[in-house]
Amino acid sequence: MKYRTPATMQAVQQDEAAGRLFLRELPVPQPGAGEVLVRMAAAPINPSDLGSLAGLSYSGSRTYPITPGNEGSGTVVASGSGLFAKMLLGKPVACSPSTEGKGTWAEYMVTSAQYCLPLRRGVDIEQAAMLVVNPLTALAMIEIARKGKHRAIVNTVAASNLGGMILRLGQRQNIPVINIVRRAEQVGVVRSRGGEYVLNSSEPDFVARLRELAQRLKATLFLDAIGGEMTQQLADAAPFGSTLLLYSKMSQQNCSVDPFVALVKSLRFHGWFLPNWLRTKNLFQSIAFSRHAQNLLATDLSSHIGRRVPLSSAQAALDRYVQGMTNEKVLFRIGAAG
Amino acid sequence: MKYRTPATMQAVQQDEAAGRLFLRELPVPQPGAGEVLVRMAAAPINPSDLGSLAGLSYSGSRTYPITPGNEGSGTVVASGSGLFAKMLLGKPVACSPSTEGKGTWAEYMVTSAQYCLPLRRGVDIEQAAMLVVNPLTALAMIEIARKGKHRAIVNTVAASNLGGMILRLGQRQNIPVINIVRRAEQVGVVRSRGGEYVLNSSEPDFVARLRELAQRLKATLFLDAIGGEMTQQLADAAPFGSTLLLYSKMSQQNCSVDPFVALVKSLRFHGWFLPNWLRTKNLFQSIAFSRHAQNLLATDLSSHIGRRVPLSSAQAALDRYVQGMTNEKVLFRIGAAG
Repeated sequence: MKYRTPATMQAVQQDEAAGRLFLRELPVPQPGAGEVLVRMAAAPINPSDLGSLAGLSYSGSRTYPITPGNEGSGTVVASGSGLFAKMLLGKPVACSPSTEGKGTWAEYMVTSAQYCLPLRRGVDIEQAAMLVVNPLTALAMIEIARKGKHRAIVNTVAASNLGGMILRLGQRQNIPVINIVRRAEQVGVVRSRGGEYVLNSSEPDFVARLRELAQRLKATLFLDAIGGEMTQQLADAAPFGSTLLLYSKMSQQNCSVDPFVALVKSLRFHGWFLPNWLRTKNLFQSIAFSRHAQNLLATDLSSHIGRRVPLSSAQAALDRYVQGMTNEKVLFRIGAAG
Repeated sequence: MKYRTPATMQAVQQDEAAGRLFLRELPVPQPGAGEVLVRMAAAPINPSDLGSLAGLSYSGSRTYPITPGNEGSGTVVASGSGLFAKMLLGKPVACSPSTEGKGTWAEYMVTSAQYCLPLRRGVDIEQAAMLVVNPLTALAMIEIARKGKHRAIVNTVAASNLGGMILRLGQRQNIPVINIVRRAEQVGVVRSRGGEYVLNSSEPDFVARLRELAQRLKATLFLDAIGGEMTQQLADAAPFGSTLLLYSKMSQQNCSVDPFVALVKSLRFHGWFLPNWLRTKNLFQSIAFSRHAQNLLATDLSSHIGRRVPLSSAQAALDRYVQGMTNEKVLFRIGAAG
């Protein structure tokens, strides 16, 4: 039973960095060698999308117009050559774009077969749309904490969806999490999730309190999604020998690091990027990792969906998301499946 | 034969950060438990002293007035309790201050016995005054390169005394060194030492040339003594998976690090501090390391002494040093031995 791909599709496009979003009628792309065509079912707006939309680039070069969206779910409806690509044909998958700027906010996406995770029976297609960016990152962070024998974790985006996952996984593995939020009203969000240690970085004694708490709990793994001055605040508070994972740039500013603080305390700052981390795993480790994430997708790693919107509302949804940001997950429902 | 310690000594003092230097008559300090009293023979001005004199602090807290000087040589003339302290009595040593602000630019210094390296027979007391900061750092950097399987090294202070040592050790171990200098006239200094790869960071195509050269030579260990914008330039040029050692702050500015560059290339930034590194060695490793350094002190690890001056000329010597900086090593000759 061959799927009949239409000639054109609806896709969101942005014509320049920080530019507005448009819904356009575009040709459906064709998969090349090792690639698949995914008919998208759902795709979220993530905090990391905001950086991409502002013009921050992972690959260092992108060609406008772009289609945004760093993850989603759907069904593989066509494949290019290659064993793994062929195997995925007809299967539901969670997926990410393998080319920057050819993202998931579209009815169809071509991506590398290696950027698709086949979904287990019974996994919810909406939750699966949010499998990659947050759940895999949360699991990876906990694995890094365990392997590095870190006794506790400091998390800078505690009120976010990712923050909730890290907190729940930490609770299950007896790894205390020190939760940093930016606004007073977010303290309650983290407390309602059962967060015991919550610090508001806007308060004047923030660094002193973080230092005291990190020393007491022996928190030596700092997850820095912010950059800018936050990095130096974390370094100031960090116990001797701590590791800071630099994994996003939500301040949109470069990290500031005092080399004296870094050298006296033997601090380590490691750039951390999920695709690079996944590449350090062999095939069997990757499959086990993906299964583990899917098993937890209805519980510890579930995302609370605040609103479902069509692609045609992309700009309006984004505007609202920027205001509410971490409190509400917005999901695009795409195509006939929506 | 008991050494008769005088009641007072001449010592250099600075009364506030960035303040002038004075030669003062002070009481000779007494060694406590595990400490020794060293009658100083010689002590250098190092680039790292400039940061200390400007007020940068390794320990984070210091009480003025301070006596500067991070290394030197002399004879242990009194000891407090403790086996190692007693064993050093009467011996010539290379030494560093164990308390920040109680330095080597004085006729006598009390320090921890653990901060003294007993000198082998025949080691020159002037070269020994410069054994710790540069030779041990150079040897450590080469060991880090070897153990980390880095194929080549990028060094940011190539025209310095340390730069020469790293270059010579690298040549002997077949580890190419990419030498970065800041001024056109320093290119010749490095070339005259046999440096093959020399880049001037003041030239407009510096980053592009460094990137090309680092890729070609597989240089994945970057020694950053500068901080500030240099750190980001190194990160921009660094191959995937590179390590940047942050070990000084000669720009007197915090390192700037773009987290996107760091995460996409899985870069690592490690604060590196010689005393911390030495503490990772056991006693036997430390002795072997110190012997190795002393054996090379007349050859690969020798420092060219530009001028010898008395402590009474400290301020004048410092003023001249700041102008010439890396081109000429200034040594204080101290006490009767001078």
